[in-house]
Amino acid sequence: MDDERILDRLRELDIELPPPPPAIAAYLPCVVHGSLAFVAGQIAMNDGVVLHPGSLGERVSLDEGVDAARRAALQALSALRDALGGSFERLERILQVTVFVASVPSFVDHPKVANGASEFVAEILGDSGRHARAAVGVPSLPLGAPVELVMTAAVRSA
Amino acid sequence: MDDERILDRLRELDIELPPPPPAIAAYLPCVVHGSLAFVAGQIAMNDGVVLHPGSLGERVSLDEGVDAARRAALQALSALRDALGGSFERLERILQVTVFVASVPSFVDHPKVANGASEFVAEILGDSGRHARAAVGVPSLPLGAPVELVMTAAVRSA
Amino acid sequence: MDDERILDRLRELDIELPPPPPAIAAYLPCVVHGSLAFVAGQIAMNDGVVLHPGSLGERVSLDEGVDAARRAALQALSALRDALGGSFERLERILQVTVFVASVPSFVDHPKVANGASEFVAEILGDSGRHARAAVGVPSLPLGAPVELVMTAAVRSA
Repeated sequence: MDDERILDRLRELDIELPPPPPAIAAYLPCVVHGSLAFVAGQIAMNDGVVLHPGSLGERVSLDEGVDAARRAALQALSALRDALGGSFERLERILQVTVFVASVPSFVDHPKVANGASEFVAEILGDSGRHARAAVGVPSLPLGAPVELVMTAAVRSA
Repeated sequence: MDDERILDRLRELDIELPPPPPAIAAYLPCVVHGSLAFVAGQIAMNDGVVLHPGSLGERVSLDEGVDAARRAALQALSALRDALGGSFERLERILQVTVFVASVPSFVDHPKVANGASEFVAEILGDSGRHARAAVGVPSLPLGAPVELVMTAAVRSA
Repeated sequence: MDDERILDRLRELDIELPPPPPAIAAYLPCVVHGSLAFVAGQIAMNDGVVLHPGSLGERVSLDEGVDAARRAALQALSALRDALGGSFERLERILQVTVFVASVPSFVDHPKVANGASEFVAEILGDSGRHARAAVGVPSLPLGAPVELVMTAAVRSA
C-alpha cells in the first residue's frame, strides 16, 4: 500500500501514528514471516497509561470501549508498519482482527465495541483494511484494559 | 474438495447449507488470501434469531451448547464456500477452529461443547475436516450467543 | 532448527520433553500445512491430571500460573515436534502464542503468567522462539485448567 497516502489519511483525520510498541524481552510486537504478519495483542495506551480501564457494562461506557478499540487498532497499524521497515509499502491487506472485550456477563454489544476498530481500519486503509473479525467477551485483560486487539495481515515478502 | 460430494453428505444428514452470512459494512464474513482463508467469528443463528442464548452452566444445557457449536460450524462452512466462489472445490482442508463458549466460572466441559463443531466438520469433510482446536470459556458473547466459532482453512489459490 | 541442540538445551535445564498429546477423534494436536503449523490449545497436564487447577486471583497463585504456562508451552513444542516427524529440524520459528488465563475479574497480571510461556520458549529456541503474543483472561477453561496456550509456528515444507 502507499505509505504516504495512508499517512495523509491519518493527518486528514488529525490522528497521529503513535510510536510503535517497544520490543519486550519475552516477545515481539509483530512477527513477519513470508507473506504473513502477526501483531501481538494491543491494549490502548495513552502516555503510558491504560485508556479507559475497566469493563464494559460496568465502569466503561460503550463510547469509551469504541475509543479503546480504535486506539488499539491504530497501535497495531504502528507495530505493523515498524515491523515492515517503517513503511506501509509492503502491507497488502488486513486479514483477521480479534477483539477481546472486558465485559460483565450481561454485556452483549461486543460487535459495537469491535466496530470501533473495524471501521477505523477500513477508513484508513480502504477495502484492503476489511478483514474477518471475531469479537468476544472476557472477564479481565492485562493492566485492567477494556479491549485487547489481535491483528493478522498479508504482506509482500521483503 | 468435491463440492457435489459434500453437498450430498449434507443432504444425507438432512442438513441444509444456510445462506452465507451477509457482508457487513465494517468487516467481511471470510477473507481468502493465497492459500489461507479466515472465517469471521460465527454465532449460531436460526431465522435471524440467536440459537440457545445464554451461558453454559446456567441457562444453556450441554446438548444446546453442542447444537449451537454444530450450527456455527455449518455457517462457517457456508461462509467459506461463498468466499471460494460458491463451491468447496478450492477447499483443501480445515486448519484451525477456536470455540469460545459463554460459561459460568464453574463450567469445565468446553471440549464437549466444541466437539459439536469438530465432530460435525469431520463428519462432513472427512479427514480434511480434522483441525487443531482450542476451546475456552468466556463470560459473554455478541447478542448473548452461547458459542462463537472462528475457523481457518487451507485453500487452493484461484 | 537443530533437533539435538534443542534436546540438549532441555536436558541442561533438566526438563524432559513430554510425550506428544494423543490425537483425539474429533481433532488433531497439530496441523501442518505448507510453511505453517497450528498447535491445538494446550492445557498443562502432569501424569494425566490438570496442573494447578483453578483461577488466577483465587485458588491459583501467580507462580503456579507461570508454571502452568511454561508446562503448556513445553507440551506445545512436543506436539509440534511430533507433527514434524519427531524432530525440530523443520521448525523455523514460533510466530504467535495466545495465552488464555482463567482469572477473576479483578486480575490484571495476565502478562506475568504468559511470560512463563514466552520466556521459556525463547530460552529453549533462542531468537527463533520469540513470537507475537496475546494474553487474555477467561472465566473458565477445559477441565478447570488455569491456562490454555495456542501456538502457531513457521516450518519448512516436508
